[in-house]
Amino acid sequence: MSDIFCKIIAGEIKSELVAEDTDWIAINDIRPKAPVHILVIPKKHVELQDVSTELAGNLLVAARTVAEKVGVDKTGFRVIINHGEHGGQEVPHLHLHILGGRKL
Amino acid sequence: MSDIFCKIIAGEIKSELVAEDTDWIAINDIRPKAPVHILVIPKKHVELQDVSTELAGNLLVAARTVAEKVGVDKTGFRVIINHGEHGGQEVPHLHLHILGGRKL
Repeated sequence: MSDIFCKIIAGEIKSELVAEDTDWIAINDIRPKAPVHILVIPKKHVELQDVSTELAGNLLVAARTVAEKVGVDKTGFRVIINHGEHGGQEVPHLHLHILGGRKL
Repeated sequence: MSDIFCKIIAGEIKSELVAEDTDWIAINDIRPKAPVHILVIPKKHVELQDVSTELAGNLLVAARTVAEKVGVDKTGFRVIINHGEHGGQEVPHLHLHILGGRKL
């Protein structure tokens, strides 16, 4: 696969890395919709319909961990997964948006 | 704990059940913001900051399974977790919103 997230993970496109673990990266969204807008992206190319329970759990816990790291865990945040056309998904590679830093 | 979701899970308050498994229920939101608006709720009272990786994975895969069950998996849907004040969380018990049935 050669979507933009695969290219970022391969180091072919630069991004602002916020955190990383064995199976995911967290980067700043290039078009932030809130003071904090971070994407948690599995390193493996996968879509929501195919993700394993284990990886799904790691990604959701990663969102929590990243929210703590950037200091929005106390004030609150929103996690969003857009899937398919009605969901407004823009990149065909599973990713979780973390939004915070203001009242959403 | 005695939040509204705990009362629904205990059978003390009625709800429209969409699906159920050992560790979660899915019910229709009483104030739907889209043609499909379902909540996936862990049966155990837990918040996002305390959820285990295993339960987190089960809940996210449940959202996918429920989306398939109600027929929005092909057209697309959005999964949202509101956490804390900035996130707009209304009930202090982890829950995933599934929204679909129209372009979001």
